[in-house]
Amino acid sequence: MLTELSAKLTAMRERVFNANLDLPKYKLITFTWGNVSEIDRETGYVAIKPSGVEYDTMTVEDIVLVDLDGNRVFGDKKPSSDTATHLAFYRAFANIGGVVHTHSRHATAWAQTGRDILALGTTQGDYFYGSIPCTRQMTPAEIAGEYELETGKVVIETFRTRNIDPDMVPGVLVHSHGPFTWGKDAHDAVHNSVVLEEVAYMNFVSHQLQPNISSMQQELLDKHYLRKHGKNAYYGQ
Amino acid sequence: MLTELSAKLTAMRERVFNANLDLPKYKLITFTWGNVSEIDRETGYVAIKPSGVEYDTMTVEDIVLVDLDGNRVFGDKKPSSDTATHLAFYRAFANIGGVVHTHSRHATAWAQTGRDILALGTTQGDYFYGSIPCTRQMTPAEIAGEYELETGKVVIETFRTRNIDPDMVPGVLVHSHGPFTWGKDAHDAVHNSVVLEEVAYMNFVSHQLQPNISSMQQELLDKHYLRKHGKNAYYGQ
Amino acid sequence: MLTELSAKLTAMRERVFNANLDLPKYKLITFTWGNVSEIDRETGYVAIKPSGVEYDTMTVEDIVLVDLDGNRVFGDKKPSSDTATHLAFYRAFANIGGVVHTHSRHATAWAQTGRDILALGTTQGDYFYGSIPCTRQMTPAEIAGEYELETGKVVIETFRTRNIDPDMVPGVLVHSHGPFTWGKDAHDAVHNSVVLEEVAYMNFVSHQLQPNISSMQQELLDKHYLRKHGKNAYYGQ
Amino acid sequence: MLTELSAKLTAMRERVFNANLDLPKYKLITFTWGNVSEIDRETGYVAIKPSGVEYDTMTVEDIVLVDLDGNRVFGDKKPSSDTATHLAFYRAFANIGGVVHTHSRHATAWAQTGRDILALGTTQGDYFYGSIPCTRQMTPAEIAGEYELETGKVVIETFRTRNIDPDMVPGVLVHSHGPFTWGKDAHDAVHNSVVLEEVAYMNFVSHQLQPNISSMQQELLDKHYLRKHGKNAYYGQ
Repeated sequence: MLTELSAKLTAMRERVFNANLDLPKYKLITFTWGNVSEIDRETGYVAIKPSGVEYDTMTVEDIVLVDLDGNRVFGDKKPSSDTATHLAFYRAFANIGGVVHTHSRHATAWAQTGRDILALGTTQGDYFYGSIPCTRQMTPAEIAGEYELETGKVVIETFRTRNIDPDMVPGVLVHSHGPFTWGKDAHDAVHNSVVLEEVAYMNFVSHQLQPNISSMQQELLDKHYLRKHGKNAYYGQ
Repeated sequence: MLTELSAKLTAMRERVFNANLDLPKYKLITFTWGNVSEIDRETGYVAIKPSGVEYDTMTVEDIVLVDLDGNRVFGDKKPSSDTATHLAFYRAFANIGGVVHTHSRHATAWAQTGRDILALGTTQGDYFYGSIPCTRQMTPAEIAGEYELETGKVVIETFRTRNIDPDMVPGVLVHSHGPFTWGKDAHDAVHNSVVLEEVAYMNFVSHQLQPNISSMQQELLDKHYLRKHGKNAYYGQ
Repeated sequence: MLTELSAKLTAMRERVFNANLDLPKYKLITFTWGNVSEIDRETGYVAIKPSGVEYDTMTVEDIVLVDLDGNRVFGDKKPSSDTATHLAFYRAFANIGGVVHTHSRHATAWAQTGRDILALGTTQGDYFYGSIPCTRQMTPAEIAGEYELETGKVVIETFRTRNIDPDMVPGVLVHSHGPFTWGKDAHDAVHNSVVLEEVAYMNFVSHQLQPNISSMQQELLDKHYLRKHGKNAYYGQ
Repeated sequence: MLTELSAKLTAMRERVFNANLDLPKYKLITFTWGNVSEIDRETGYVAIKPSGVEYDTMTVEDIVLVDLDGNRVFGDKKPSSDTATHLAFYRAFANIGGVVHTHSRHATAWAQTGRDILALGTTQGDYFYGSIPCTRQMTPAEIAGEYELETGKVVIETFRTRNIDPDMVPGVLVHSHGPFTWGKDAHDAVHNSVVLEEVAYMNFVSHQLQPNISSMQQELLDKHYLRKHGKNAYYGQ
């Protein structure tokens, strides 16, 4: 049984290694500006990128395992400095299995404005059931305190106070910072980061063409989100 | 004779397979966000991409054949969920032989604004004889009904009520959604998708530089469209 | 001596072949939307791309030779439909040796607005001694007449009436159409097309950031243009 | 000992050769529009790109060595025409070890507007402790004089009069021209050029979305800059 568990955690570390390499592949990051993690809900162990390691020298052995309190349970390297943010999401959002942080260009440009990305069309509606929210600014106390943990908390607060379901809106913009996304596993969370960056760009262009543009029809959003994600989902391109 | 027909349909399925692969090659799509079809007017059979299959694992065997009513006549896979839209175009537009749907970035950004792409220059005039229209929003009843079929119908209505010849304007923006193009076969329809995305970008930039820009001179549009597509066409770069 | 001449013209046709292939390499064109030519001033023969041939099947044998009146002196293919425009430039601008036409994205977007590209910085000043002019619209009579020849004539008129030296401003925007550039040979003309597209992009961004931006200081323009192109040129990065 | 010194300078010339090749790799330059240097503080020798040599034919033997007064101490080629600017930085900024000049697209577009790049988010704050300043215009006398040296001087003046620490803001925009960056060595200076271009783009987009946007919170800037660069730095993605 120990062997089985060990094999499962090794497979997860391999998935996280590959998902991290997908960030430069999809042009979501410059240098090492991003990180991906995945959780094994049975043990509560989280596999995450090591801190400050270059993508072209990183190996699967460098992927660290930590528990939900941040204690390292496998690996020689320090886990990513953003680990506390990832763990906050895993603790608060019961159904998610993977988390991604990037500084992808257009999602970051939106985060710098402090504005939500409105659902303007079906490209967003196929993956996000409504606007992608931007958090409030963090307070000086939050910034001076356990900053990375507080970053997670302000995201969670945003979803709770605005009554947004993280399972239906799998991403967020952190004010003056950049995007986080999540999903059922690391691969799915990366997929959602690609979509978020894509709609961040498209919606930038739409806003430029029509400065006072507003969200799409609710009926069309319902149709697109639910034909892919609802109980009676049937859609494939 | 059956063998001949079978060879013809196999060749069409191969063309459709290759035309689908052209979508990522020309950077028109992210993931599987697009589909291409072609019709054999003799049998009325349409070859189309299967639903939800990844591009890097799709084989020519996955390309489905359906008749004009949507009945599957070849293939194990489900046809693309957008099949009903494609079929509506083949039934209404007698001269077209191929149809493409994508979420290409700038055409989609325009679709999200609900605005036509005006003919601002000869790049568009070489392929589209005037503005590329954007449909009206769909009604809640259309969205709740046979949505993909209704998507086709609202496009056809746009061309009929605005008296636009689909043979001279081989593409459309569906409001809050994205572009469809068509052409004499699948390859030609993909070609028109590339042009549509290109002019969507150029015209975005021109609108940014000059917000109240209007369409090009009618004489220049006539010259460019007709020297390539008119009875006395003579042009090649 | 005939052999020598023949070798010289063959070498020119090879240069023109390669310069045409540089257009997709530098991402200046989509499909076949461009053409390059070069003149041999001794014979007055011009080597130019054939009409409507795809870049991936074109061979050096396809490059056509015409004289300055447009008569074909070598080759099986029809010369590019834009040949009359190229020839007008060679006849009017005594020092140029190569001509390029493209529909590069940002230069074309500017051409669609009918506005000059102002010299906003040293990137432009290193190659163009001032604004890159945009022609007036063509008249219905010009469009209905020998259109490609008239396109050349309206460019020449622009340089003459505005007293611009084509040797110091090696490019132009044709209203509602796109850019032409020239240079001492085909290679140099392509180089200038790359620069034109680059400054078209940069200046678009500068105009977005500062809508009423005006040209750079004359002294700085003098310095940059003349340290590279004046009698006492000394500059290399 | 002479052998040791010689080996050290050869290694520096190799680093500078590779750092110059990184400019096209990171898409920071078109053609030869850039140059990288590095200084050996012990000897005061600076290795720099030769003037006007194409990147695809340049070899490590072409990298020139000059002393801080600009006298050539190694190499057959002329040093880059921008050498006097680099040397001015090395003389004035005691802690820097490498300098880069490019015409990267968005940094140059900002330079053309004469405006600082405000710190709008943590992407910039991770590397630049505040705004990236733009110099004033140069005077006609400065332009007519030792122009490349005066370019360096106006940058130095900008940092001194605005009381900006070049160790904490490792880059600048030269008005109507383009960016320079520096760092602890050539590699680090190139890294900072990549970051500068990246934030120039992101901040362009943010400004388009929100024209009156202002700088990020000082507390967040402090946190991000200092967790990476302060005495108690701990951060790695």
